[in-house]
Amino acid sequence: MAATSWNRHHIISLADFQPFEYDAVLQTAASFQEVLSRRTKKVPALQGQVIANLFFESSTRTRSSFELAAKRLSADTLNFAPGTSSITKGETILDTAKTYLAMGTDIMVIRHREAGVPLAIANEMDRLQTRVGVFNAGDGQHEHPSQALLDLFTICTLFDPEKPRLSLLQGKKIAIVGDILHSRVARSNIWSLTASGAEVHLVGPPTLLPKAFADFVKGSDELPRKLFVHWSLEPALENADFVMALRIQKERMTSHLLPSLREYHWRYGITGDRLQHCQPDVKVLHPGPVNRGVEISSELMDDPKFSLISQQVTSGVAVRMALLYLMSSGKA
Amino acid sequence: MAATSWNRHHIISLADFQPFEYDAVLQTAASFQEVLSRRTKKVPALQGQVIANLFFESSTRTRSSFELAAKRLSADTLNFAPGTSSITKGETILDTAKTYLAMGTDIMVIRHREAGVPLAIANEMDRLQTRVGVFNAGDGQHEHPSQALLDLFTICTLFDPEKPRLSLLQGKKIAIVGDILHSRVARSNIWSLTASGAEVHLVGPPTLLPKAFADFVKGSDELPRKLFVHWSLEPALENADFVMALRIQKERMTSHLLPSLREYHWRYGITGDRLQHCQPDVKVLHPGPVNRGVEISSELMDDPKFSLISQQVTSGVAVRMALLYLMSSGKA
Amino acid sequence: MAATSWNRHHIISLADFQPFEYDAVLQTAASFQEVLSRRTKKVPALQGQVIANLFFESSTRTRSSFELAAKRLSADTLNFAPGTSSITKGETILDTAKTYLAMGTDIMVIRHREAGVPLAIANEMDRLQTRVGVFNAGDGQHEHPSQALLDLFTICTLFDPEKPRLSLLQGKKIAIVGDILHSRVARSNIWSLTASGAEVHLVGPPTLLPKAFADFVKGSDELPRKLFVHWSLEPALENADFVMALRIQKERMTSHLLPSLREYHWRYGITGDRLQHCQPDVKVLHPGPVNRGVEISSELMDDPKFSLISQQVTSGVAVRMALLYLMSSGKA
Repeated sequence: MAATSWNRHHIISLADFQPFEYDAVLQTAASFQEVLSRRTKKVPALQGQVIANLFFESSTRTRSSFELAAKRLSADTLNFAPGTSSITKGETILDTAKTYLAMGTDIMVIRHREAGVPLAIANEMDRLQTRVGVFNAGDGQHEHPSQALLDLFTICTLFDPEKPRLSLLQGKKIAIVGDILHSRVARSNIWSLTASGAEVHLVGPPTLLPKAFADFVKGSDELPRKLFVHWSLEPALENADFVMALRIQKERMTSHLLPSLREYHWRYGITGDRLQHCQPDVKVLHPGPVNRGVEISSELMDDPKFSLISQQVTSGVAVRMALLYLMSSGKA
Repeated sequence: MAATSWNRHHIISLADFQPFEYDAVLQTAASFQEVLSRRTKKVPALQGQVIANLFFESSTRTRSSFELAAKRLSADTLNFAPGTSSITKGETILDTAKTYLAMGTDIMVIRHREAGVPLAIANEMDRLQTRVGVFNAGDGQHEHPSQALLDLFTICTLFDPEKPRLSLLQGKKIAIVGDILHSRVARSNIWSLTASGAEVHLVGPPTLLPKAFADFVKGSDELPRKLFVHWSLEPALENADFVMALRIQKERMTSHLLPSLREYHWRYGITGDRLQHCQPDVKVLHPGPVNRGVEISSELMDDPKFSLISQQVTSGVAVRMALLYLMSSGKA
Repeated sequence: MAATSWNRHHIISLADFQPFEYDAVLQTAASFQEVLSRRTKKVPALQGQVIANLFFESSTRTRSSFELAAKRLSADTLNFAPGTSSITKGETILDTAKTYLAMGTDIMVIRHREAGVPLAIANEMDRLQTRVGVFNAGDGQHEHPSQALLDLFTICTLFDPEKPRLSLLQGKKIAIVGDILHSRVARSNIWSLTASGAEVHLVGPPTLLPKAFADFVKGSDELPRKLFVHWSLEPALENADFVMALRIQKERMTSHLLPSLREYHWRYGITGDRLQHCQPDVKVLHPGPVNRGVEISSELMDDPKFSLISQQVTSGVAVRMALLYLMSSGKA
């Protein structure tokens, strides 16, 4: 596996990911995807290593995916249940992390509703000169790097299942639809997809997509990132190769950022009809869980000709195996 | 193990179970029971397979039994915690199941308070042409097949520990006492016990046992099922070989279906005295957890001469190992 | 490992622990500590054994430590979640324990807010002539033996990392500071530390440390236990080799046993200044989780010259591995 030049032992953000790193993840994940097609879907790569899932914000789906990835690498896993934890007893988050460090944890997978918590823990682990890896499994509205990497893997393997690589997306058009402002999934995907040379078109209601949003990416590094902002679906979908619908949080309604789910679906919902303006072989992605009939019509979600949603979940296990494996190798 | 002719890869209901299937379960469980008497109580049968426990209705006892059965087959397990799941985020149950399918789950063990959920998921898995097995771990008031099969195994091994088989119950008399109307345990046991040729006598208060109850079984298939309904204990216990007390849900009191626990115990509680009308070597079963002094007197529960309650729990692990193993073989 | 003469298969209290038993734990833990320094931190000692964590009182930190210890011995673990258990369905605690017994559990790790529950379960397991081991992971205000043994191990390995033994503490002075009255950690530590021949000085506010407290230990057995009680810090800290701060429960404020956290810190908080009256190489311990700035100043907690808090957590895994291993060998 392509781990020779890898030397990153935390996965916090994709903002500074290099093309060779994307390709290492994609190629390592492709190897593991092959393992997962066997009857015995395990490799001994991380035997005896301990991976602690510190999900301060609960999530069964993502935790299960990480737990399964860890088990298929033969690692031992510890699950942290926020409701019953020392946090409620007044311990600081850094002290909780240091407790898991002292127990002998090798990798901490961290989800927290505040942006920056995984980075703070990673910095503390480095300051203490430990070799613990920190994996951001979603921090507030900041980033969710493994979600973006599994999206990338899902797309790239369509073009070359055996050698998925970033350059395959050069010149493709990808629309990201929905609540961009609050979405860590969108932020991570913007970094990865623009790094590939694809055109990324963001589209959502003005309350959830400020015009200035594109500025935080464009010109932030030497890459000529192609990022566009729209308030209506039509220009974003026109000739798109991929449409990624984001999950709408129902809380946005009570905070008056959205009028109603029906209105949202009418203006921004992805349906079979609306895909007719895209490329004929357009594919639809969604990070899940889906509100059927809101972000995507129920028929479209179940149509294997268009929907990549199941493949995204499957890719999630292989991509997380790849990242855990690379983080672990990056410590040597 | 007797898996040659087995070709059922879902366990949903015992209504259409065939005698050879009961015997396959009993004999496979007997093999695993032997494994469990060793110091190292594991076999590599399901190594690398993933078993997801999707307990939408929570149950520590049953989940632990399934989890232990899976671990002793060397499978990896995923636990789904309903309180923290995508269900609360608006995802449909079928979409949750499809997510676990896409992650690479081999067998889904499902408990849900609505009857029919496991069947609906099994149908969807088949429609999608997957090879995932669905195991009903209790659905509403419908069925709880593994409970009935562990009861059957517990009884049959009394007569022949090495070769337990359905025909050993031919002509025996078994009383099932309590809240028949709401009991999935009773429904599954009625199918298995009447299939054996035993006489099954249901007994409970009229509010919890309509006279017409027997009709749903009798004449429903070609088997001459012997099922009787009583509102008082005496005729049911007379000469009984086995007495199975069902758990009383305290909610039945608030819904006016039962006057009080004391009154219930006075009329239907199983005590040493009342067993004197049964066969001298009568045995008592209960699916647990027991309300001591309500369904069964505390003394009787602790009397190893009569009580099979501990053996039932022990059988549970072996029988669930057998079912998981057979389901898995049934997919080939 | 030094398990030849060990014949205790429950760990309930340290009141009757013998010096050779302390030394067996310390030496076995030292062997496992060495295992934990390798990349593959597992041994096959308890392969196929089942360890059930029955935490009726929830605790993520302690449960994680036990779970990791079990996994590193290659045991299978079951976790019991009190909120979703049969307990809420009216089952007695002894019946819950018997259910886990019947499933085939080898060791039960039990935490309960009532003193005496682990002992009651151990007695029942013995009465039933089972070989199940019961491990008290904290019962009310009674004892928390593994915490005291990990404290002992942490201290003894400072003097001889390869051969930690009880006699190394002969003549040392150890201060235990805080809510002695309600602390199971203090009770267990008093037994182990006085058994070593160290001088143990208890110090806390009069509401949390009755003058008669020392009497329950002194003269309770043939050992000449050296135990002293103080209401002010100075005499306890003077020339102390070790200072162990106990956790303050915030509930003590509402029950008027403490005026305020600030007042507590001002009178009993451990700070760098206050350590100047101790031995120059004094070390500070705390069972965690720490209320920073209350029991210990934040600076002191993070100062590796003084704080043993991280080492305590690390020792916890090795000591629990040792105890589980010895309990298991003690059954043969």
